[in-house]
Amino acid sequence: MTPESVAPRHQTRNGVEFAVADLGLAEFGRKEIRLAEHEMPGLMALRREYAEVFPLRGARISGSLHMTVQTAVLIETLVALGAQVRWASCNIFSTQDHAAAAVVVGPHGTPEQPRGVPVFAWKGESLEDYWWCTERMLTWDGEGPQAGPTVPDDRTLQAGPNMILDDGGDATMLVHKGAEYERAGVVPSADENDPDEWKVFLSLLRASLAADSGKWSRIGAGIRGVTEETTTGVLRLYQLAAAGELLFPAINVNDSVTKSKFDNKYGIRHSLIDGINRGTDVLIGGKVAVVCGYGDVGKGAAESLRGQGARVVITEIDPICALQAAMDGYPVKRLESVLGEADIVITATGNKDVVMAEHMARMKHQTIVGNIGHFDNELDIAGLARYPGIRRETIKPQVDEWTFPDGHSIIVLSEGRLLNLGNATGHPSFVMSNSFSNQVIAQVELFTKHEEYDNEVYRLPKKLDEKVARIHVEALGGELTKLSKDQAEYIDVDVEGPFKSEHYRY
Amino acid sequence: MTPESVAPRHQTRNGVEFAVADLGLAEFGRKEIRLAEHEMPGLMALRREYAEVFPLRGARISGSLHMTVQTAVLIETLVALGAQVRWASCNIFSTQDHAAAAVVVGPHGTPEQPRGVPVFAWKGESLEDYWWCTERMLTWDGEGPQAGPTVPDDRTLQAGPNMILDDGGDATMLVHKGAEYERAGVVPSADENDPDEWKVFLSLLRASLAADSGKWSRIGAGIRGVTEETTTGVLRLYQLAAAGELLFPAINVNDSVTKSKFDNKYGIRHSLIDGINRGTDVLIGGKVAVVCGYGDVGKGAAESLRGQGARVVITEIDPICALQAAMDGYPVKRLESVLGEADIVITATGNKDVVMAEHMARMKHQTIVGNIGHFDNELDIAGLARYPGIRRETIKPQVDEWTFPDGHSIIVLSEGRLLNLGNATGHPSFVMSNSFSNQVIAQVELFTKHEEYDNEVYRLPKKLDEKVARIHVEALGGELTKLSKDQAEYIDVDVEGPFKSEHYRY
Amino acid sequence: MTPESVAPRHQTRNGVEFAVADLGLAEFGRKEIRLAEHEMPGLMALRREYAEVFPLRGARISGSLHMTVQTAVLIETLVALGAQVRWASCNIFSTQDHAAAAVVVGPHGTPEQPRGVPVFAWKGESLEDYWWCTERMLTWDGEGPQAGPTVPDDRTLQAGPNMILDDGGDATMLVHKGAEYERAGVVPSADENDPDEWKVFLSLLRASLAADSGKWSRIGAGIRGVTEETTTGVLRLYQLAAAGELLFPAINVNDSVTKSKFDNKYGIRHSLIDGINRGTDVLIGGKVAVVCGYGDVGKGAAESLRGQGARVVITEIDPICALQAAMDGYPVKRLESVLGEADIVITATGNKDVVMAEHMARMKHQTIVGNIGHFDNELDIAGLARYPGIRRETIKPQVDEWTFPDGHSIIVLSEGRLLNLGNATGHPSFVMSNSFSNQVIAQVELFTKHEEYDNEVYRLPKKLDEKVARIHVEALGGELTKLSKDQAEYIDVDVEGPFKSEHYRY
Amino acid sequence: MTPESVAPRHQTRNGVEFAVADLGLAEFGRKEIRLAEHEMPGLMALRREYAEVFPLRGARISGSLHMTVQTAVLIETLVALGAQVRWASCNIFSTQDHAAAAVVVGPHGTPEQPRGVPVFAWKGESLEDYWWCTERMLTWDGEGPQAGPTVPDDRTLQAGPNMILDDGGDATMLVHKGAEYERAGVVPSADENDPDEWKVFLSLLRASLAADSGKWSRIGAGIRGVTEETTTGVLRLYQLAAAGELLFPAINVNDSVTKSKFDNKYGIRHSLIDGINRGTDVLIGGKVAVVCGYGDVGKGAAESLRGQGARVVITEIDPICALQAAMDGYPVKRLESVLGEADIVITATGNKDVVMAEHMARMKHQTIVGNIGHFDNELDIAGLARYPGIRRETIKPQVDEWTFPDGHSIIVLSEGRLLNLGNATGHPSFVMSNSFSNQVIAQVELFTKHEEYDNEVYRLPKKLDEKVARIHVEALGGELTKLSKDQAEYIDVDVEGPFKSEHYRY
Repeated sequence: MTPESVAPRHQTRNGVEFAVADLGLAEFGRKEIRLAEHEMPGLMALRREYAEVFPLRGARISGSLHMTVQTAVLIETLVALGAQVRWASCNIFSTQDHAAAAVVVGPHGTPEQPRGVPVFAWKGESLEDYWWCTERMLTWDGEGPQAGPTVPDDRTLQAGPNMILDDGGDATMLVHKGAEYERAGVVPSADENDPDEWKVFLSLLRASLAADSGKWSRIGAGIRGVTEETTTGVLRLYQLAAAGELLFPAINVNDSVTKSKFDNKYGIRHSLIDGINRGTDVLIGGKVAVVCGYGDVGKGAAESLRGQGARVVITEIDPICALQAAMDGYPVKRLESVLGEADIVITATGNKDVVMAEHMARMKHQTIVGNIGHFDNELDIAGLARYPGIRRETIKPQVDEWTFPDGHSIIVLSEGRLLNLGNATGHPSFVMSNSFSNQVIAQVELFTKHEEYDNEVYRLPKKLDEKVARIHVEALGGELTKLSKDQAEYIDVDVEGPFKSEHYRY
Repeated sequence: MTPESVAPRHQTRNGVEFAVADLGLAEFGRKEIRLAEHEMPGLMALRREYAEVFPLRGARISGSLHMTVQTAVLIETLVALGAQVRWASCNIFSTQDHAAAAVVVGPHGTPEQPRGVPVFAWKGESLEDYWWCTERMLTWDGEGPQAGPTVPDDRTLQAGPNMILDDGGDATMLVHKGAEYERAGVVPSADENDPDEWKVFLSLLRASLAADSGKWSRIGAGIRGVTEETTTGVLRLYQLAAAGELLFPAINVNDSVTKSKFDNKYGIRHSLIDGINRGTDVLIGGKVAVVCGYGDVGKGAAESLRGQGARVVITEIDPICALQAAMDGYPVKRLESVLGEADIVITATGNKDVVMAEHMARMKHQTIVGNIGHFDNELDIAGLARYPGIRRETIKPQVDEWTFPDGHSIIVLSEGRLLNLGNATGHPSFVMSNSFSNQVIAQVELFTKHEEYDNEVYRLPKKLDEKVARIHVEALGGELTKLSKDQAEYIDVDVEGPFKSEHYRY
Repeated sequence: MTPESVAPRHQTRNGVEFAVADLGLAEFGRKEIRLAEHEMPGLMALRREYAEVFPLRGARISGSLHMTVQTAVLIETLVALGAQVRWASCNIFSTQDHAAAAVVVGPHGTPEQPRGVPVFAWKGESLEDYWWCTERMLTWDGEGPQAGPTVPDDRTLQAGPNMILDDGGDATMLVHKGAEYERAGVVPSADENDPDEWKVFLSLLRASLAADSGKWSRIGAGIRGVTEETTTGVLRLYQLAAAGELLFPAINVNDSVTKSKFDNKYGIRHSLIDGINRGTDVLIGGKVAVVCGYGDVGKGAAESLRGQGARVVITEIDPICALQAAMDGYPVKRLESVLGEADIVITATGNKDVVMAEHMARMKHQTIVGNIGHFDNELDIAGLARYPGIRRETIKPQVDEWTFPDGHSIIVLSEGRLLNLGNATGHPSFVMSNSFSNQVIAQVELFTKHEEYDNEVYRLPKKLDEKVARIHVEALGGELTKLSKDQAEYIDVDVEGPFKSEHYRY
Repeated sequence: MTPESVAPRHQTRNGVEFAVADLGLAEFGRKEIRLAEHEMPGLMALRREYAEVFPLRGARISGSLHMTVQTAVLIETLVALGAQVRWASCNIFSTQDHAAAAVVVGPHGTPEQPRGVPVFAWKGESLEDYWWCTERMLTWDGEGPQAGPTVPDDRTLQAGPNMILDDGGDATMLVHKGAEYERAGVVPSADENDPDEWKVFLSLLRASLAADSGKWSRIGAGIRGVTEETTTGVLRLYQLAAAGELLFPAINVNDSVTKSKFDNKYGIRHSLIDGINRGTDVLIGGKVAVVCGYGDVGKGAAESLRGQGARVVITEIDPICALQAAMDGYPVKRLESVLGEADIVITATGNKDVVMAEHMARMKHQTIVGNIGHFDNELDIAGLARYPGIRRETIKPQVDEWTFPDGHSIIVLSEGRLLNLGNATGHPSFVMSNSFSNQVIAQVELFTKHEEYDNEVYRLPKKLDEKVARIHVEALGGELTKLSKDQAEYIDVDVEGPFKSEHYRY
């Protein structure tokens, strides 16, 4: 990629900078955002709670997270709380172009006169596009206000972001690596065997250093904190903190119960079959479906498929999770043992090399193979492509039939990437309302109290987790029982919570 | 509509007459047909069983049934058994344009040189289009062969159809009404209050009589029998038979167990949530979903929603079905009692006026309302449109938000028509393989043995029902146990079946 | 057996004849009857409906049906409707002794001054006992009134019974065979290979003919009709009717929907695991449970086991039921294929020789084997006992461990008889309230309108079935929706029902 | 109680001291132990693993834990590993008398020549009995060997116990309070308002101090550690440790995942309906069942009832658990809101005063009320007994009908104590095999490595948890997948585990 290649998309209109597919999609996006707001009671409750407080006034948030309709509601919640925001997606395929356009236009703008938030994201970015977008999102050099509608403007953009909201840690990595290489004065060369993406990444930093050798150091110094959405990103943060290299405090949003036990389980329960159905239209009932992994994601996946009448088989490496699967009524088998009967194979492990090309070579004709875990390396797509004599035919976008030399074929969804995002629309709004409420609360916490935090990784206090849950229980019409003082003492908690010890497992 | 309006679509190419949206879609359609063949083991088994017999040689089948990918496999199975076929859809919205194109092109043709079957169907027909298509499908006036690839051609088309394959009874009605008015010498005038469709229908017949006053009588006389797919169509047939007006024998395919207990229950279980998900992307888990009706369709609908974690409430008029619902763990309520908590309301009654505008006026904000029963009159869409001060906004095709004057809105799917067809792709192939195998068997039966049948309505013998089931059990890897002679005598059945009395309920 | 052997139990006290284990158990029995009345809303509604009508005044009902607490409520309902009643159990093991005693004592009597109904039944009868009880139950030679509390007494007992209420057809068979042999003037000799029970049966009739050569003919002539509870009994009745030998009309209660689809399915769902739990205390979760047969009983059994977390496997001979099992998410296998992994094997076929000794010889150590179908011949207990070198150890009543020469053992419940009755207490009251309401309605129908019936087998009209369902729906707090006149016409039914065609399958 | 009152039971025979109901029950107990061994693969695997090692040689274990068949297998596993053992139950009702007798007799003894373990426990102890038993179990003053069959005897009993295995903490409390009062030289007086049990406890210690003023200090000093089974006991231990008063190290077995997530959830799923069924024989299907609390116990309870077709409603104070309930498809209500429709009310909170007398006064007629949480104070039985005009009738042991003055009654199970133990037989063996394997592993750990531990509360390392799980997965026929070295590195774990971080929630 060269910046030129996205030039047609990269523009400033009415003072709003952006690079999205088509602002004309904004109208449809605004409709969906409006409907989604109703399904995101956590975010809307936070808007109401802080309606006249603007706790994020002065915050300049650089966000890297799938640019979907749900994220649009998150972004506009941050704005409603007083923040200025710039956004990019954290995945080259996950942007919903109408959502991106709608965020740029904003609730009060038009495509001609956008009044929203700068977004740099479109569906189907190249790797160069992707990192260009990420850099743009972190670079606050515009002149004018990207104001939310409700806050008097007293911000200076030249200072760069003071908060990061991250999903997977790419934004955080760019700042950290940039600053590291600036300190070293040089960007290392890529090794020939390095992944393509790493080469692109280094090349972007090399250009950056050439243009401004202090940019990332300045940005890093200005940031009060980062809030991180995922297991993967959190792992990177813990490693940075352990090495003493973390430049600012971090809040691990991923391990909030209302994130990990809801998004992962109930979100997947919804979106797994949605992805399979949209991708293949194949009856799930009566089929043998193998789910690799029985963590939270695997639990949701198994329930989803069983609810449709599939015979679900689990593979596991962890005996505790395996015993849970057995107690939940699922056979626990090794993948090799069930290839001969599997109709559907789904990976949900968070590990790599789970379903290899040799496995796929031994599957039944037209077995459906997909990944709902994390990275596309759960499936050995590279090995598949190298398989001697194999033939690939794209049935429709994100649905490929791979035919082996012996004549049998398999159906691969989303090229091994997250099939719920690739073949459907990802998690529904209500689930994301939980996760994103934690994000907003964490942003407020770090932005307003950053002095109280060291450059370490923190979890949100359980009480805030319970607050997020309460909003969503009530939105579903649930009635919570209240502890009496006497009862609270009896179990040694406060009447208002938190109600469980830190190691409680839910 | 005038014939002119479809003229661009209505053409003959390479001797194949057709009116479809775009032959260019055929390539995608052929891919999906190929995948679907694997999922329709019943039809493929019939092709193998009759591979050298061609029991339908000489059959000229006029078919009226949703023109989907699954129907394409049905059509090509009929052709493989020796039949000539012409096709129309039985619903103005249900055609999949790529499937229609693929059938015209056929497995051995190209868009330039189609070698398939004449199809008259596209998504989004007007009422005039619809009846024009139905008439074309029943009119065998082409010159050339519409040969299947495997049968020597010895057919004359001028003779008109000798078999009807019907879904809902529209083709049968056209022949019967046409013949009736020809006998009367006149087509009656429509009443002002008659539905629009009836006016269109009479107007078509009026033009037909003017052009050829004996057409429908000739066609009716040439038909050996009809096989009918649905409850509604079957009801019409029983009424005709009871009145002594049925012109030819009929087989009620709907009441085969492998149709009514599978298509209705397990097909719906699959396609209901598929339709809701594609239409709305709203989390079903934790929501209150009301299913009106607990017949086979309602049972499948309830299981579908519960499998996603919804709290399902049933409404019923039949106390036996209601008691089943209660025993299955569902609250049985009147609709009025649950309007205040329902998030999703689905009709599955086969009756009319189930959810009225007044009900919708009292629903919660953004309640999702859809029909998966039979006709769109389960929902009072007309009443909704007349509601004073109401405002309709189309979010996307088949998804409308209706906002009441008090500000709350509801989301109506597919304008009240079958939401699994309108918002998704209908029942999956495997389920339809059951229903359509019964269709093919019934076509062979009536075509080859029509002399043994009176002008009455028949059901398929249980043994054929069991045959269809056996094929599909084995396709799922099931192993059937075999009765010993001794055991068979003990329960007074034949070793080979049928295994149950006629009144057994399954 | 000789009559002497039961002499200690056979007595008349306060004018009530009986043979039960111990009248001292009556107090406990009365408590359980009182609780059960609340759980049998159908029977209690019939008592209220007929409170001042006494439609069974003049009826002398001989009943043969498991003498449980639920049956006690049935008996006392018959009495409340004006009938005189005599009772025996239809199974040598199924009597609950406290229920039998309580019925004899009656709601207003004491063990010293019983004021209830003559009962001839105790747990653990010999075959001689059993048939002696059945004869006593059919022999109305007492002097005094066996009055219900509410009806003036105008009955003559010398006339014998005028109604039979039967479960399995033994009472009906005794009358028919007795009359047949009386006509022949001789009772045939038993063949050496005949089952023991047949020898006992013939020997009882031989003694009867010797004592009174016209007894059964007189009884047969006096009977207005029989109502039959079970599939097996119904089969016998159809065979008698087909042969022109049925002496009186019969109503097939078994095939009422509120009987066959509720008792069989939901009753089993409850009582199967209850029997397994009480018998073995073994964790069902995580185990492989094979259910032989997927009719209504098998469907209930499978749901029961799955609800506890078992991996359920189905065996079936009927491909339609097998396909239902597959669609419901169960593997369909032959028994031979799963012996190596089964932990629990349950028969629910209604056939014989389903699990043979050779199967049991190949099971895993401590596999649990039981029958919930009909007769104990579903399991080859006789073959097991003959297995060379086998050893039987009774763990506790109704639980036997059979150890094979190779050292592995299996656990057999209730010697192959119905394990829900043998190891637990059978179906719960609410389920039986459905079945028994049909019984009462059928008794009233036949007793009051016997002239309208031929000596054939009839089913209850669907409307009465719906009435039974309605009572139980309402008892569960269900709200039924009411059809409008317009809707009723639309689907061509009456506003008040019946709502479905005769061949509707539910 | 005075020691005299148990004198008939308290004896020494063949050198084995004991106080159990009836040694004659031992034969039945031995049979059930034999069957249970097969269902406790964890314990049997530990016996095999340590067959020639005897890691507990020299251990003198005083155990206080429900004296059931499963516990018998635990005790004999400890013996097989080389320990000497004395046992009492931790609950006055939970002893299975045949199990107690069988343990005394041992696998190689007879009632006349017992060769087993000293047990002091019977069903239905008074409070005085209970504490007398507990003291006896902690007092090693016998002369002879209580040898396991496999270990040469080199033990001296005069030294008292050197290990405690505790459930609920009563044994630990007796030692701590005894030592505390010995240090103080006096046992405090009970307050008039103190619970009866506290008065009994103080009175026992008063007598003990009078007889031997250093007994508990000596015992406390000799103990290497305690392993504790329950939440409640663990809470006491943490409080002692926090106060610096813990006399020896403790291992918290309760919080092993294979304990808390299995015993609590899957054990309850099994035993809740077992208790309800044995207690009431009432159909659960179709009924409204309220489960108070949605922790692990509540989750198992809800699944249990739903699996039987109940409509389950949840009450919760913790919004996170409440949101889980909602996502799992349950309505979340306050108890007050559902009293009018509840048929069954089960407490599973671990708190007190959950269902009060005023709640019960407003329930429907014959509502079933029971507790499966922890203590009987979840239900306000005391308030019920004080309710003006109330009448209690015992239907059968552990089943009471309480009739209010207005005529409606409720059915209370097990007087509010754990209904699965009171009305059924508690958790099944397989579940307990998990918990007890953790106990054995913890005993070995503390006994052999006590010098490495401070007087604190520890949890078992996750790897041992995984070991326990692995044994049980394999016993169920599960196949575990093995991580490659590469995969293990990728997720930063060891190939052999542990596989998850400490805060993973499963």
